[in-house]
Amino acid sequence: MRENPPLITLTTDFGYQDYYTAAMKAAILRINPQARMIDISHALPPQDIMAGAWVLKNAAFDFPPGTVHLCVVDPGVGSDRRPLICEIEGHFFVGPDNGLFPLTASGKNLRAREIQNQDFMRKPVSNTFHGRDIFAPAAAYLSTGTPPEAFGPVVEKPVYYRWAEPIADQEGVQGWVSHIDTYGNLITNIPQNLLPENGNPGVKIYAGSAILDAVEHCYSSVTEGEPLALIGSSGMLEISVRDGNAAEMLSARKGTVVSVVFKK
Amino acid sequence: MRENPPLITLTTDFGYQDYYTAAMKAAILRINPQARMIDISHALPPQDIMAGAWVLKNAAFDFPPGTVHLCVVDPGVGSDRRPLICEIEGHFFVGPDNGLFPLTASGKNLRAREIQNQDFMRKPVSNTFHGRDIFAPAAAYLSTGTPPEAFGPVVEKPVYYRWAEPIADQEGVQGWVSHIDTYGNLITNIPQNLLPENGNPGVKIYAGSAILDAVEHCYSSVTEGEPLALIGSSGMLEISVRDGNAAEMLSARKGTVVSVVFKK
Amino acid sequence: MRENPPLITLTTDFGYQDYYTAAMKAAILRINPQARMIDISHALPPQDIMAGAWVLKNAAFDFPPGTVHLCVVDPGVGSDRRPLICEIEGHFFVGPDNGLFPLTASGKNLRAREIQNQDFMRKPVSNTFHGRDIFAPAAAYLSTGTPPEAFGPVVEKPVYYRWAEPIADQEGVQGWVSHIDTYGNLITNIPQNLLPENGNPGVKIYAGSAILDAVEHCYSSVTEGEPLALIGSSGMLEISVRDGNAAEMLSARKGTVVSVVFKK
Repeated sequence: MRENPPLITLTTDFGYQDYYTAAMKAAILRINPQARMIDISHALPPQDIMAGAWVLKNAAFDFPPGTVHLCVVDPGVGSDRRPLICEIEGHFFVGPDNGLFPLTASGKNLRAREIQNQDFMRKPVSNTFHGRDIFAPAAAYLSTGTPPEAFGPVVEKPVYYRWAEPIADQEGVQGWVSHIDTYGNLITNIPQNLLPENGNPGVKIYAGSAILDAVEHCYSSVTEGEPLALIGSSGMLEISVRDGNAAEMLSARKGTVVSVVFKK
Repeated sequence: MRENPPLITLTTDFGYQDYYTAAMKAAILRINPQARMIDISHALPPQDIMAGAWVLKNAAFDFPPGTVHLCVVDPGVGSDRRPLICEIEGHFFVGPDNGLFPLTASGKNLRAREIQNQDFMRKPVSNTFHGRDIFAPAAAYLSTGTPPEAFGPVVEKPVYYRWAEPIADQEGVQGWVSHIDTYGNLITNIPQNLLPENGNPGVKIYAGSAILDAVEHCYSSVTEGEPLALIGSSGMLEISVRDGNAAEMLSARKGTVVSVVFKK
Repeated sequence: MRENPPLITLTTDFGYQDYYTAAMKAAILRINPQARMIDISHALPPQDIMAGAWVLKNAAFDFPPGTVHLCVVDPGVGSDRRPLICEIEGHFFVGPDNGLFPLTASGKNLRAREIQNQDFMRKPVSNTFHGRDIFAPAAAYLSTGTPPEAFGPVVEKPVYYRWAEPIADQEGVQGWVSHIDTYGNLITNIPQNLLPENGNPGVKIYAGSAILDAVEHCYSSVTEGEPLALIGSSGMLEISVRDGNAAEMLSARKGTVVSVVFKK
């Protein structure tokens, strides 16, 4: 028996006004009353697999290895899309086979199994809520130490999506806004290592209606209401407005191009 | 001493930006530091007793018997409406006497007591926040094993509401939209057992601006953007739009009539 | 070893759709797997220090002494604003030096230390997310019993804001709406003790588009849709509309003047 209770995180597009998340937690507690459950987010845009993977890849691996991550963004529920258990760097992920976990892995090694063993499901299995009937019970059994191989066979080729990569050459980098956070910050798909080290050479950054001349150290490097670029907590180039909403003020949205031109 | 910590669920219309839910949790922890608290929802529409009962009746009974469910949707706070402890199928419910728990019971046997014993209240009792001052302490004491009879006398006739029932005959069923979930799915008050078994005879379903010819197996039975009918996770007929918002696309809202006509 | 797990509360303006809160919880659990975490709110208006302090001062002191309160409303992250640990009445508060904690103390004695010891930080420390990299680890170490003096030196003069006080004389009291809650209730900065005891002399209360003749006992003292004044759960004068939204119906917002005139 472990000293610390097993951790299960929950990430869904269920919102906060319905009973769906509570039904999953009840299903977990019926199987593992000792499970410790941490909500990552239940406010993902409905059916938005990319948004789910973006949140997961930034939060999941900060938890201790062995954590079970239950993730339900599942437009294909009730069809023949497979229910999966995936292992990525010692973490377990439970959810639908719709590209969510390869996006979460984002290049890390992933091993997938299909959940087939009916002994680990809530009966009867509904056609619209596998979160409660298949995924939550699987997460609970995993958290009690049931090994992945007990649930079903290896899946050689899970549904596979990958993140669009920025285009980089000696002249500069072209990327996109891949996420807009609660403050309206524009998080791009341009990682720090594609930018000049120590700000040399200088850059011009084109983002929505703003043109910026530098990657700043922090929000306070500019005055209130001014736009700026900086490296955010996910290690990516972000475009922000100090004490303001960059998405609104720069008329940008997911997919908006962000160009970094290196000065000569 | 029990091995598993006692469970208390919380369901309110307090929203997420205020201190009200935290104040209830603090009141609980002062009395029972071992209590395990699970949020069901705090995003109920303000003062909406029916919405609270709908969420509760779908979530509460999935938790283990003995769970204490603290539910505060309380437009009558501070008036002479009674504070209640109700037992339904081995679960405890704590909240106001305003119809919430008979709706939650939905035909299940219910025994109610009035909370009168001041020893189990936070002092002073405010006129606007019985959630913190009466209900949360009562839930906490129940979770430590205090029996319901210690709180006050039996209430013979709690305030009683019941759900509108659909009208069914040999020609078909007429019901209503009783809940709209976060995806815009229209959940009706028509249970599966009022519909033909195995789709024979066939049906025509009239819901908002849509006419549907079958009860489908799952969302993926139709193409994206198409409306469909299916049996949802609560066992009721639901009208959805695949990868879309049925409430918006079919111009439906709570109370909209849904008619099922059996084919000859 | 304590019998009850150490409590850490969390209050932020992070919203619910991003990974930021989960990243703080993961950082805490890495250091103290036994920590018990209670969310107060993550829906504070972005960058709104006053709103954060208002929620904190009403919720924090209901928890048991020794509780660690992690509070991140941090527009100055990455600048030279100091990271703080504050002690107020036996509670610990961890967050930025931007006025948040003096407002929370609201006159109570406060002792502040700067977090300087790098041993208690997550490496590398980002410039945009001290919640994860400095504050959450500090809260976790405090919860394991690390004394405040281990983190850094005393701060003699933390950034200091105070709440605007109402103006009171023998004629009456003039205050302001200091908070609007989820129901649209207008919570003023006028405490009960500035109002006549037992309703004698009578009052006229001017609030937005309403003129009220009494401080009522509870919402049910007036009919549905009528405005009323009462003493809310925070001990302050509140203006409400029974079963309605006072902010909308009385065209009031934060800062709107509320005048109480004593009758002769």
